[in-house]
Amino acid sequence: MVASAPMPDPENPHANDAVFEMHLGGKMEIASTVALNGRAELSMAYTPGVARVCEAIAAEPALADDYTWVSNTVAIVTDGTAVLGLGDIGPSAAMPVMEGKAILFKQFGGVDAVPICLDTTDTDEIVDTVARLAPSFGGVNLEDISAPRCFEIEQRLQERLDIPVFHDDQHGTAVVVLAALENALKLTGRAMGDARVVISGAGAAGVAVARILLAAGVTDLAVVDRRGVLNSSRDDLTPVKLSLAQDTADTTGRVGRLVDALDGADVFIGVSGGNVPEEAVARMAPDAIIFGLANPNPEVHPDLANRYARVVATGRSDYPNQINNVLAFPGIFRGAFDVRATSITEGMKLAAADALAALVGDDLSEDFIIPSPFDERVAPAVAAGVSSAARRDKVARR
Amino acid sequence: MVASAPMPDPENPHANDAVFEMHLGGKMEIASTVALNGRAELSMAYTPGVARVCEAIAAEPALADDYTWVSNTVAIVTDGTAVLGLGDIGPSAAMPVMEGKAILFKQFGGVDAVPICLDTTDTDEIVDTVARLAPSFGGVNLEDISAPRCFEIEQRLQERLDIPVFHDDQHGTAVVVLAALENALKLTGRAMGDARVVISGAGAAGVAVARILLAAGVTDLAVVDRRGVLNSSRDDLTPVKLSLAQDTADTTGRVGRLVDALDGADVFIGVSGGNVPEEAVARMAPDAIIFGLANPNPEVHPDLANRYARVVATGRSDYPNQINNVLAFPGIFRGAFDVRATSITEGMKLAAADALAALVGDDLSEDFIIPSPFDERVAPAVAAGVSSAARRDKVARR
Repeated sequence: MVASAPMPDPENPHANDAVFEMHLGGKMEIASTVALNGRAELSMAYTPGVARVCEAIAAEPALADDYTWVSNTVAIVTDGTAVLGLGDIGPSAAMPVMEGKAILFKQFGGVDAVPICLDTTDTDEIVDTVARLAPSFGGVNLEDISAPRCFEIEQRLQERLDIPVFHDDQHGTAVVVLAALENALKLTGRAMGDARVVISGAGAAGVAVARILLAAGVTDLAVVDRRGVLNSSRDDLTPVKLSLAQDTADTTGRVGRLVDALDGADVFIGVSGGNVPEEAVARMAPDAIIFGLANPNPEVHPDLANRYARVVATGRSDYPNQINNVLAFPGIFRGAFDVRATSITEGMKLAAADALAALVGDDLSEDFIIPSPFDERVAPAVAAGVSSAARRDKVARR
Repeated sequence: MVASAPMPDPENPHANDAVFEMHLGGKMEIASTVALNGRAELSMAYTPGVARVCEAIAAEPALADDYTWVSNTVAIVTDGTAVLGLGDIGPSAAMPVMEGKAILFKQFGGVDAVPICLDTTDTDEIVDTVARLAPSFGGVNLEDISAPRCFEIEQRLQERLDIPVFHDDQHGTAVVVLAALENALKLTGRAMGDARVVISGAGAAGVAVARILLAAGVTDLAVVDRRGVLNSSRDDLTPVKLSLAQDTADTTGRVGRLVDALDGADVFIGVSGGNVPEEAVARMAPDAIIFGLANPNPEVHPDLANRYARVVATGRSDYPNQINNVLAFPGIFRGAFDVRATSITEGMKLAAADALAALVGDDLSEDFIIPSPFDERVAPAVAAGVSSAARRDKVARR
């Protein structure tokens, strides 16, 4: 006899599913930080007392930073077009990810985050809508918005607003990759300027990783999309890719396909979701570094990568060296909010990566190049680095 | 010698001010409703587990009601143009009121509410912006938006969205006024259809109070603005006022100024902020009912009103019979959300008023025509009435 499995409930196919049970009713709520136990408190938190606070802010707008929740609150804005690996599933279906992000913001960074899932995918409409929401929030975290719109949306919003605008799929990923790479290079005795680096993927994450590596001192960098190495001899590049080509492969003359680029490369960073053939992996330099970040299927499976590389990282929690954005975004916004920064500069991102890398310290090894998301030192260290950099870059308002 | 007062701190003029101290850092925060204590829980609430919930919603959008916070969450939307009695103080200065409202929503109705203060006062832009936010919220509470834009904004949003849209300054006030009036009429032995009612003020609250009183059976109603009784012989009326004139004074032929309208009137409802001269009050009918709702200065001060009227109500907490919107909005949205209503109908508002009035029961007296905001029966009773009415009106989705 075969043991009987629980009967699926046709009324609710997700019953007895732990993930769905956890999501029942959503994962977040609003809470009051003040007591309202009687008329006296009610008349302070609401009319008539609250009117005095409103009048004070109307007379001196900066007081909103002190007397409202705005300066600690970030809008997590998505249009649902590039959600996880699922693609364009729309704003409603994106909400569980945004709620997840919101509770991570709170748990790790003490940042209040509100999911805003937009019923438009039009660039102008997204920019206008978010700009109109700005008095409600101290920062904007763009999330899961597809490339290339994400680049323009972020840039236009940051130009228009005097609060931090941060596309996490780009910069959160870039910060954690840079931190991991700093440690991997240290472990393998390379300098940033000596490493030959190949990035597979030229979407939001690929472009941002490339940009932060250039800012960190990488000089031999090739970015590869489905048609090969980005270089300006190609006639199919978007403006963003063309600009990146000029700053990467154009400077070294690299051309060809991914396999060509990988020949002798020190570092492979996959943010594409594709698969790299074993022959190509095998042609990388000795002591190679392989970050295959696609989830759940890395571009190079760790079992294969470990055969050819010395340091291997993935986006997965079931292998060592998980490159997880949660290591970055809570501390970055915490640090920006602590000094009321008006934007998040390149310097602040680099400082976040440095702070993250430094936490590994003497424990550095092939299987430990990046801290755990549950290391409680992470967000405070990242925040401190980010705050200092904001002051250096003169974007701190206090 | 005179006892020395605390020195004012030039750095912070609001130090040692209890209201400002209560507002420090704002009055609300985001909280998680799930535990995130390790990698296993992280991988359920966030990637990779959350992807399955997203996919399920993408396949069957109604599941967002069950597996996100959306169906229990209302956006409190303002443009800051008509905040309390302060007027157009802008979106940032309006935030303390919106936060106050949000924590009242939670405390009294168990409703999660998010303040959205908009950096635009353009009707089209407000409508478009809120419509684009709709996937993030289960309802929209419009707040402190000036008339006449508030009427059009509410109507256009409700036509465009299949979630409740509710302008609290209109309908919250109207519901509580109707409840109080039902009891005041009962106490003074009048029927709704026999009372001569005068409303001073034809803004958001005045129009909504007039509409709900007509729906509740008042037949002799005059609405008065700064220039006198609304009637269609006037050539200065907005479309909203003209329509109201046709349904009120036009049917009885009343014309003239407020003092004329009050001559022999049974009920005065002030939602204008003006002042009624004593001579006019003195000419009301015996056993008159006077609601002076302007805050902090009622249109008829209670000390004066009590000289001529049998039942007196105000918006103030330091006199009996406080007409306070908090008696309505938490229970109304609770009731609407409980049955996933797609709008808030006239029937649901009337049911809310009836439920509220009924709670007074046998304790009815001149000084007790409306329950206290801290009466814990209020929101559940209002919610139950609203849910039933939503089912009767066929706007309930469950």
